[in-house]
Amino acid sequence: MTSFESDYNNGAHPDVLQHLIETNNSPSVSYGYDEWSELAREKIRLACQAPEAVVQFLVGGTQTNATVIDALLPSYAGVIATETAHINVHESGAIEASGHKVITLPSHNGKMDAEDLCKYLKTFHADPTWEHMVFPGMVYITFPTELGTVYQAAEIEQIYSICQQYNIPLFIDGARLGYGLASTECNFDLPWLAHHCNAFYIGGTKVGALCGEAVVFPQGKAPHMFFTIVKRHGALLAKGRLVGIQFNALFSNNLYLKISQYVIEKAMRLRQLFIDAGFPVKDSPTNQQFVILTNQQKEKLMSQVLFETWETIDTNHTLCRFVTSWATTETDLKELQKAINRLKK
Amino acid sequence: MTSFESDYNNGAHPDVLQHLIETNNSPSVSYGYDEWSELAREKIRLACQAPEAVVQFLVGGTQTNATVIDALLPSYAGVIATETAHINVHESGAIEASGHKVITLPSHNGKMDAEDLCKYLKTFHADPTWEHMVFPGMVYITFPTELGTVYQAAEIEQIYSICQQYNIPLFIDGARLGYGLASTECNFDLPWLAHHCNAFYIGGTKVGALCGEAVVFPQGKAPHMFFTIVKRHGALLAKGRLVGIQFNALFSNNLYLKISQYVIEKAMRLRQLFIDAGFPVKDSPTNQQFVILTNQQKEKLMSQVLFETWETIDTNHTLCRFVTSWATTETDLKELQKAINRLKK
Amino acid sequence: MTSFESDYNNGAHPDVLQHLIETNNSPSVSYGYDEWSELAREKIRLACQAPEAVVQFLVGGTQTNATVIDALLPSYAGVIATETAHINVHESGAIEASGHKVITLPSHNGKMDAEDLCKYLKTFHADPTWEHMVFPGMVYITFPTELGTVYQAAEIEQIYSICQQYNIPLFIDGARLGYGLASTECNFDLPWLAHHCNAFYIGGTKVGALCGEAVVFPQGKAPHMFFTIVKRHGALLAKGRLVGIQFNALFSNNLYLKISQYVIEKAMRLRQLFIDAGFPVKDSPTNQQFVILTNQQKEKLMSQVLFETWETIDTNHTLCRFVTSWATTETDLKELQKAINRLKK
Amino acid sequence: MTSFESDYNNGAHPDVLQHLIETNNSPSVSYGYDEWSELAREKIRLACQAPEAVVQFLVGGTQTNATVIDALLPSYAGVIATETAHINVHESGAIEASGHKVITLPSHNGKMDAEDLCKYLKTFHADPTWEHMVFPGMVYITFPTELGTVYQAAEIEQIYSICQQYNIPLFIDGARLGYGLASTECNFDLPWLAHHCNAFYIGGTKVGALCGEAVVFPQGKAPHMFFTIVKRHGALLAKGRLVGIQFNALFSNNLYLKISQYVIEKAMRLRQLFIDAGFPVKDSPTNQQFVILTNQQKEKLMSQVLFETWETIDTNHTLCRFVTSWATTETDLKELQKAINRLKK
Repeated sequence: MTSFESDYNNGAHPDVLQHLIETNNSPSVSYGYDEWSELAREKIRLACQAPEAVVQFLVGGTQTNATVIDALLPSYAGVIATETAHINVHESGAIEASGHKVITLPSHNGKMDAEDLCKYLKTFHADPTWEHMVFPGMVYITFPTELGTVYQAAEIEQIYSICQQYNIPLFIDGARLGYGLASTECNFDLPWLAHHCNAFYIGGTKVGALCGEAVVFPQGKAPHMFFTIVKRHGALLAKGRLVGIQFNALFSNNLYLKISQYVIEKAMRLRQLFIDAGFPVKDSPTNQQFVILTNQQKEKLMSQVLFETWETIDTNHTLCRFVTSWATTETDLKELQKAINRLKK
Repeated sequence: MTSFESDYNNGAHPDVLQHLIETNNSPSVSYGYDEWSELAREKIRLACQAPEAVVQFLVGGTQTNATVIDALLPSYAGVIATETAHINVHESGAIEASGHKVITLPSHNGKMDAEDLCKYLKTFHADPTWEHMVFPGMVYITFPTELGTVYQAAEIEQIYSICQQYNIPLFIDGARLGYGLASTECNFDLPWLAHHCNAFYIGGTKVGALCGEAVVFPQGKAPHMFFTIVKRHGALLAKGRLVGIQFNALFSNNLYLKISQYVIEKAMRLRQLFIDAGFPVKDSPTNQQFVILTNQQKEKLMSQVLFETWETIDTNHTLCRFVTSWATTETDLKELQKAINRLKK
Repeated sequence: MTSFESDYNNGAHPDVLQHLIETNNSPSVSYGYDEWSELAREKIRLACQAPEAVVQFLVGGTQTNATVIDALLPSYAGVIATETAHINVHESGAIEASGHKVITLPSHNGKMDAEDLCKYLKTFHADPTWEHMVFPGMVYITFPTELGTVYQAAEIEQIYSICQQYNIPLFIDGARLGYGLASTECNFDLPWLAHHCNAFYIGGTKVGALCGEAVVFPQGKAPHMFFTIVKRHGALLAKGRLVGIQFNALFSNNLYLKISQYVIEKAMRLRQLFIDAGFPVKDSPTNQQFVILTNQQKEKLMSQVLFETWETIDTNHTLCRFVTSWATTETDLKELQKAINRLKK
Repeated sequence: MTSFESDYNNGAHPDVLQHLIETNNSPSVSYGYDEWSELAREKIRLACQAPEAVVQFLVGGTQTNATVIDALLPSYAGVIATETAHINVHESGAIEASGHKVITLPSHNGKMDAEDLCKYLKTFHADPTWEHMVFPGMVYITFPTELGTVYQAAEIEQIYSICQQYNIPLFIDGARLGYGLASTECNFDLPWLAHHCNAFYIGGTKVGALCGEAVVFPQGKAPHMFFTIVKRHGALLAKGRLVGIQFNALFSNNLYLKISQYVIEKAMRLRQLFIDAGFPVKDSPTNQQFVILTNQQKEKLMSQVLFETWETIDTNHTLCRFVTSWATTETDLKELQKAINRLKK
């Protein structure tokens, strides 16, 4: 059945797979020191216009968040995030597993508000009991957010500036980074992002790879003993090439951005299908589209295409999520359109 | 240059890669609930003659050890292992990262001695201060061991029996499981192993896969909330199919065992080359061969084939490790033979 | 200067000190197995009308929360508490240090609302992604709360009932338990409390002791290996008698309740002084009184008596905290009254 | 019955108790900022001839070890100790609970050998796989050791020098520090010790206090955010004065050393009693004496005086431990002498 369930329900983008195939019989050294990983790192540095950047490949998103946050924080410190942040909601406590509190700020349509952050830090440092509290040691935001929204350059600029003022790093979770950058609402590019945070990762799993995330420390300072920390988190691949080869493909011929643009174009088309049919849709400029259906419509539609139930709105309405990916085709959209049309009868 | 450095310096076995290729365009559900993972689980149950077994796919060895040990132990307990155990030496403290002590027993050529274990547990439980000590909550052994040796059935039987007596689980690290089972010195098979421990894993990374380890709880009782624990350890793949597909290939047509036998055959040939040339070799019936070279010989050989320096023996001798893999060819062995011959001149 | 800063700014209540003096020269066994600890445990069981109760003495409040919560939770689970809970705000991340998330619910004047709890648990268990989230493994409330308020019997009953329904323990932090029980707004007693939770602690430090908290598992089931867990948390005193002797005094001749009543009587008098002088006071029936002062009044009053600044209300007003203790005297209250009168001039 | 079971089976030394009594009614600030804690800190700095020293009071030994070690180590590092070290054997895994491995070296009669240490560090740093191992981030020794032995100045000097060479701190566990310093075999004093390590603690619990250990960072650099780390470990007393007052007494009029000398004198007398009666005694110049008894003798003696069974030597002999403390009297020794004499008949 046509599926809009998620962007990790398919294999690799054909070009990524092709590079895995063509390199398969070449021997290499292990643990990420292979030639393709090296090439991929160099291409990422170039794409980021960050020639000093340290790039480390990890396997999955939760693992990457847990490893990087643990590496950036001293044992006693916590990480500031929104209430809806992936690390606060959907990582089974992986951050706390390393001893770190997730300190939450309100979510504004998935985004952190610079004013909230400023107020929190100001209040914390003015509090006479601050030494009895968890020290806010870094800031975590997602781009695009868990709700599919995107920060504007000015918003990130403000957050980063506050971080600099308090001398704490800003880390950006880019599990779906490409879709944020390819969104028409985004007013910056990859190099800009790389110059407005201390660490971020370029999500591979959800943008055409089989697995893999590329952590970037753009200013070139990886946390001390980062390799050991990665290993200690069980995040080091013996065949590190597996991720390096995929990123080498993704950052050749602009593939990462091309996939992202393709997926966004499909998402906008999908969105328009619902709008044209008169369904209320949430504001989301990326590849996750949120549509309000009556429970009856939801049931009917679900029998024809696959998608996710996101949130109960009231006894009669449900917020549903439809996601596009590199594997979404014209045919898929046509199937969806037909199914939507059948709803109206 | 011809390489005997490790069994994780190559890509996937061609049949494994082929299955990744042929499934790439089929959509699936995520997190390991896909059809191929399901098929692979069923084939593994069959190969283990353990129809009730719970099988969970993880990504790498250190991650698997850390996740399974954390899942099997209560917070206050430790894991018993030999001093040379991978978890004690080469996992950057991943076990301690979850709060668990590695309690060490002497290594007998890489193996744990049942008598040592029995004595330790007896002494612990007789100690009036035992409540001030780390409770020994499980036993970890590797098969084959880090030194390439293999346990005999009777040895594992004794260890397992002691575990049962003390009501603590036995977990077997099978990062190179196939090479142990394919060794001529091994006097049991996979089903026998599955019936003589509480948990073990079938290593994929080092036996033909790009990544992936299959954890098996043969009696069918996974630790409570194991899925959440896996996620909390950053060990859950969004595209769980990546590992499932590979194990589906490895456990079709007996491929896992065939690869293992091929690799062992090559290892025994490699071993014989050194023996024939009069070099002292350590007792190892698996795919890691340990040869004593003079430093001069080592340097000369290293300029012609790749291998690892393992241990300094004295000021003039070094123990060197040569490893075979699915990618080792006849040509590789011939290259090595030539290089060895050149040493003697 | 007369101080209302806190209830831990003085030594021990004279009767507690006296018992330390009179027992000082008697030898005893260590680690809490001494005769006075045994007597104290028995008296606490009696006072709780819980003959099966397990009682363990620990040293301080944060330590007790961290130890008990870690003991009650499996590694992957979190503890539900209000946003204003001590464990969420003022314990420097001691709960997260053991790997556990504090899952927060709104604070209603310091209290958890049974409806909020019920809704949270219902939503969690209905969520299809629940396995990716932190399992809510227990509930923590404080009595009296951090804001000085007290739960009514019906409120605790509802919370406990929800816990039972979801089969998770309810733990009550009683750092100031006596003051809650002695409050005129409290409609239950110690035995009632002991029968409406799975674990609680009787605070000593803030109610007349030099240090020490008595953890009670009223149904008699301490967590497995609790002694070892206590030691692992650095919470085991070699001279366990230090706390046992103090609790033996506190639970002889009804001293614990008598101290509590004395302190509450002083607190109500203090409260009335502010009310009579026309100052807005927050609703608090226990020994922490919260008064709104203009910043000018605050400065003037601070030059005459000691108290704590609690919260900025607006640019011109501050919420101030005044606390009574066993050491608060009539003279102290008269000093305060004079100082308040001087404010009005 | 006369007891030689331990040095923590009695109350406080009378002078310590007296100071608790005389200060009891004076108010103070909390968390260790009180005047007596301040006085005690200053006296300790003086006694150590370390005017820049940072001194922090904690409650117990295991807690102190866990807190200081966690504070001195980055998350990924471990602590080097002997196999017999308290942190390795008798702290229920408190070090691992913070994620740190205890890396063990052989015990030479309880002591670490500088050569073993040097070799370990050299080998570690020369190992090409060192990044896969636990980084040795500090060294822990006990003075006197768990077996009652004392390091010579030259031995500590060598260990400290190696630590400096590798730029890692040396931490000395002084749970029984006084008894080491008062031993006739000790060839240095407190100021010398303070200048030959990076951190150490002065044990109070076993040397006349009810509880309390004084951590000293002699060069004046406490770990960053140490107060918060202490709180996070549940090691912060609300009534911090409890420990400060006791150390103020212990470091007035040279009391700490006087108690230590008294106890050592009694220990040497006790030792001589056994030697005179022809019993084999282990080499121990401090307050723990180890005597070999036949099992029959042990049973008979145990019916008359209290002591601890330490270790089974063979089927017929047991190593027994006899400990003196500030409370050990002439009468106690006479009772023991009589009991020993009765053994010979």
